[in-house]
Amino acid sequence: MTSGHHPPRTHARELAHVPTGTPVRLQGWVHRRRELSAVSFLILRDRTGLAQVVVKGQIELPPEETPVEVVGTAVANPQAPGGVEVVSPTVIALSDHADTPAVELWRPRLDTGLPTLLDHAATTWRHPRQRAVWELAAASLHGFRATLDASGYTEVHSPKLVESATESGASVFEVDYFGRPAYLAQSPQFYKQILVGIFERVYEVGPVFRAEPHDTVRHLAEYVSLDVELGFVRDHHDVIDALRDVLAGMVEAIHERAGHAVELLGLDVPRVPERLPVLHFREALEIAGAPADEPDLAPAHERALGAWARAEHDSDFLIVHGYPTAHRAFYSHPDPEDPQWSRSFDLIFRGLELVSGAQRLHRYADYVRTLEERGYLYAPYASYVEAFRRGIPPHGGFAIGLERWVGRLTGAANIREVTLFPRDLHRLAP
Amino acid sequence: MTSGHHPPRTHARELAHVPTGTPVRLQGWVHRRRELSAVSFLILRDRTGLAQVVVKGQIELPPEETPVEVVGTAVANPQAPGGVEVVSPTVIALSDHADTPAVELWRPRLDTGLPTLLDHAATTWRHPRQRAVWELAAASLHGFRATLDASGYTEVHSPKLVESATESGASVFEVDYFGRPAYLAQSPQFYKQILVGIFERVYEVGPVFRAEPHDTVRHLAEYVSLDVELGFVRDHHDVIDALRDVLAGMVEAIHERAGHAVELLGLDVPRVPERLPVLHFREALEIAGAPADEPDLAPAHERALGAWARAEHDSDFLIVHGYPTAHRAFYSHPDPEDPQWSRSFDLIFRGLELVSGAQRLHRYADYVRTLEERGYLYAPYASYVEAFRRGIPPHGGFAIGLERWVGRLTGAANIREVTLFPRDLHRLAP
Repeated sequence: MTSGHHPPRTHARELAHVPTGTPVRLQGWVHRRRELSAVSFLILRDRTGLAQVVVKGQIELPPEETPVEVVGTAVANPQAPGGVEVVSPTVIALSDHADTPAVELWRPRLDTGLPTLLDHAATTWRHPRQRAVWELAAASLHGFRATLDASGYTEVHSPKLVESATESGASVFEVDYFGRPAYLAQSPQFYKQILVGIFERVYEVGPVFRAEPHDTVRHLAEYVSLDVELGFVRDHHDVIDALRDVLAGMVEAIHERAGHAVELLGLDVPRVPERLPVLHFREALEIAGAPADEPDLAPAHERALGAWARAEHDSDFLIVHGYPTAHRAFYSHPDPEDPQWSRSFDLIFRGLELVSGAQRLHRYADYVRTLEERGYLYAPYASYVEAFRRGIPPHGGFAIGLERWVGRLTGAANIREVTLFPRDLHRLAP
Repeated sequence: MTSGHHPPRTHARELAHVPTGTPVRLQGWVHRRRELSAVSFLILRDRTGLAQVVVKGQIELPPEETPVEVVGTAVANPQAPGGVEVVSPTVIALSDHADTPAVELWRPRLDTGLPTLLDHAATTWRHPRQRAVWELAAASLHGFRATLDASGYTEVHSPKLVESATESGASVFEVDYFGRPAYLAQSPQFYKQILVGIFERVYEVGPVFRAEPHDTVRHLAEYVSLDVELGFVRDHHDVIDALRDVLAGMVEAIHERAGHAVELLGLDVPRVPERLPVLHFREALEIAGAPADEPDLAPAHERALGAWARAEHDSDFLIVHGYPTAHRAFYSHPDPEDPQWSRSFDLIFRGLELVSGAQRLHRYADYVRTLEERGYLYAPYASYVEAFRRGIPPHGGFAIGLERWVGRLTGAANIREVTLFPRDLHRLAP
């Protein structure tokens, strides 16, 4: 594709530091071309940014979105992006001429409706603002893992094909597994609890599947779950501390690794306080102006609590703990001092529930009793519950939805805008 | 669980550095108990190793595998693991007494057949040698990402629920997707190629699904695939260079992060040469003593080539490239100088195919022609192939199977031994 005597590749962002007169080679896409009578401009886009290429005389440039190689000379020009442009270029198309995209990617903003954005995801994600959104996601994943790697956690991968759907039978996808039914895991819950018995502290980043029968701006049929589980906890406050550190690590990684994306999107990245503000569920209901017998927080309550945390604690984050035991997952640990409340919690980020977590039951007898109290059959839970006869220490954990995190961070109106290739009730492609 | 005036937790591995007379608090599992008439020994196991606890007088210790907390005093004793033991302890069970495990985990080796190993995975993975195996996997994942993060790659997550199965219709799992059929992705192939058009260089670590109808020691129905794809390549040798760096990063991370596991298992960790030895497929057939018209390498050929690489290049790794175009995936790029051979390659690691890779077709017209030549219908491939009208640069990539890598590294006879919770024709639990 390139001959040996060409200079090494220069990325668009590096061009700013190249002295005038230096031969350069760029590779990327034709972001925009403007052909005037005496001079043409080619804006080249690569993974680092944009570069201006100036062509004297009349020339036919490849159409927008065609991958090209440009070999020319760097020249300072205060009007060019980064202050340096490329002159006297040869421009070689590296593939066939690209078809005209469904949206004009060179405009500062993608001015298009959601269906177009999603139908043409393979090109709309090329827009610098869209790409910046995913860079926040990738940086967050990096920060998540870096924090846990530094704290003695082991990365695990649990199976997504499972024998039964214990968490909630209603919203599970069924698979034809060599002629018998299997299900897609709604979470790695069972496995991460077992794995605490092996590694003490584990995390997993992977897809989870919810056959959500409703169509909302905050639910997906498949999303990326950031799961954490840790053993030898005293109670759920140890789990909340772990969550705080993970959030701080994610924010730090965004600044370090996606600073350009933050700048481009003009984001207000949250500050993670040393200690997250914590409210008991009862207090939360009161602050949200909800009746004292509400079993859960509604979206409007979450919004009110988000505003309260901002006003009272100057915090984008708020922990609500002590949800009613009867209304949380059966494996949630009750508060021993008042078992109607659980050692579970949610993290509210800017008025939206982002994370659910809890200390879990760890004794076999407690599982058996809880299933009985709830009137659940033992059989479907047998293999899960039996694991707690093998010695599982007090433990807890949480799960962060990647897309919800990025959606809230960027203020997206719909979670689909920040998902590379979303899956929902109606959408299975691209 | 612990009161405030207790010392902070000491991990088993740290105990070696604790001066005699220091109060310590350990948490872990009863790995073994031996109750003699005047003294009892408790070997405690935590995520870092083993610690010896000595109890004077007669005492009933919790049974093996019960999680416990031990508070006592560190005392030097050359006979203890690490040279330091804990005396005058109080031992508190942190959960109910554990049932007797199916296998004795305190023995130096898990002397059990594969069915027991897998049926009781929740406890058999607690054995130090088993846990060490997974630590190799976790370290490898770390090294994989670290190498790519340092080279301008973007982590991506592509959907596992897909509309059609383009790679091979025969071995795909069907899902009931809100009443219509969907499939579990056999690889992120399509998505990673599209994503090159967005980010230039991408990687993904995630599950892939193969409805393998046969039962072999090296196939799973679900495994973890380490996928890489990079744009603006000259040919597949750029892809091979990327693979070499990834392997070197994985090996480096094993030494850095799983040194104890390497030692415990007595592993011979491979050295990754600066340049991987490369053979053309034709030469490989000759060296393996296979007929010149063989379309692929059989396992016996791979073993012979592994031995050759070891003898001729002192290398555990060998690249075979230039496989016959007609016998590789339709998206493989032919060698322009002799199109019957492709710009594809396999990596053979110690005589077993571990990685497949290639430069891919990047021009729409080439896809259309190839489908025609192979007699494939256009319709099932339409959404895939149409993406190449949008400007995709020359690109290529590869995929490493995590379990195969760890299996070969540890010399496991069956890939199921190194998979946390394997899935196959017969097994869907635990």
